Amino acid sequence: ELADALEQGCLPALFTGKRIMITAGPTREALDPVRYLSNHSSGKMGYALAHAAARMGAKVLLVSGPVNLPSPPGCERIMTDSALDMHQAVMQRVGEMDVFIGCAAVADYRPQQQAGQKIKKSQDKLTLTLVKNPDIVAEVASLANKPFTVGFAAETQDVAHYAKDKLARKKLDMIAANDVSKQNIGFNSEQNALSVYWPSGEALLPVSDKLTLAAQLLTLIEKQYKE
Amino acid sequence: ELADALEQGCLPALFTGKRIMITAGPTREALDPVRYLSNHSSGKMGYALAHAAARMGAKVLLVSGPVNLPSPPGCERIMTDSALDMHQAVMQRVGEMDVFIGCAAVADYRPQQQAGQKIKKSQDKLTLTLVKNPDIVAEVASLANKPFTVGFAAETQDVAHYAKDKLARKKLDMIAANDVSKQNIGFNSEQNALSVYWPSGEALLPVSDKLTLAAQLLTLIEKQYKE
Repeated sequence: ELADALEQGCLPALFTGKRIMITAGPTREALDPVRYLSNHSSGKMGYALAHAAARMGAKVLLVSGPVNLPSPPGCERIMTDSALDMHQAVMQRVGEMDVFIGCAAVADYRPQQQAGQKIKKSQDKLTLTLVKNPDIVAEVASLANKPFTVGFAAETQDVAHYAKDKLARKKLDMIAANDVSKQNIGFNSEQNALSVYWPSGEALLPVSDKLTLAAQLLTLIEKQYKE
Repeated sequence: ELADALEQGCLPALFTGKRIMITAGPTREALDPVRYLSNHSSGKMGYALAHAAARMGAKVLLVSGPVNLPSPPGCERIMTDSALDMHQAVMQRVGEMDVFIGCAAVADYRPQQQAGQKIKKSQDKLTLTLVKNPDIVAEVASLANKPFTVGFAAETQDVAHYAKDKLARKKLDMIAANDVSKQNIGFNSEQNALSVYWPSGEALLPVSDKLTLAAQLLTLIEKQYKE
């Protein structure tokens, strides 16, 4: 029936009056003005969540990494580049939020040094030292007055194991996991499938377009958020 | 008058019967199935060159890195991902070519090891060893039966110095240089400006849209190619 509702362009107004922050996309970690480290996140899942949440009545703040997607209708959007940028944008506003969904594929590491000029390729080998970026979703989940905090896990193996471990370790309220090693779903695909875990339960959302999946995940979030 | 010709959609058929290979875009160097090293090349300059060359009568083979641009009308296109992919695609067909334009921002380095599974962020610091990629344009220029070989130099300082050095060192027939530290031109911009050097001369192509600039560069190439 959710699919029918989506097709008719109407979704249940589960989030009226609620403020939801959603992060989306990859981050880019500069080595120099030209080169960067990034990942294959397209931002489509996060943007679908923002779009669906707005249609379900939420006041949505989308904190996006560098992607070429239009701002979803009815959402406020802040564009960011690096993990440090995104961290700052999130922390500045997360205190106002009822729900936080960390869907961005934030780079775990950044180059220790960022060269001001393009690095010349004089050496045959180059050793790059990477340092850890702030863990945004874990930091949000550890706030004294934390919003209902949902994380994502993009894995290529042992998906359930890593997701449940992440849920517990980071003290999240919910985690949505997908297997990005599968060609037909996940990164840059129009479709996705999610395994969703929370401390007292789990649900499997089978392969579907990302907007339908977003609405299904938001329905699960609302159910747990109320409890 | 070239601008007028462009506006009218007609360009001088300087390359009728000639085969031109053009590389475009960035390359992506995988660390694991999720993460990669890349650069800010949008592919727009290379695609504009392919488009203009086809309109000037050439048989164009565009070897493209990962970008979200439609194939220019009248061009054959091969999509590639890493520098090694692009190297293989170029070498397989470059023997048939009259002109080669290496406009791609090929990653100079790739991770020495590519992990089969997503790397876990267990460590506080990560050391990445990068090894040199093949230098595609230099390899093309060193072929016994080489095409007229044009390179690009994207620099953030001392543009003329680095470009002339690259021209001589790689034995190119021509090099087009741009200063990517300038915000209004270069990477991801619709506009660009090029300083062009060849062993016996140079030319400055002032700020313009990339298609006009492409036609101007191709006109310079045809003049030197004939000599």
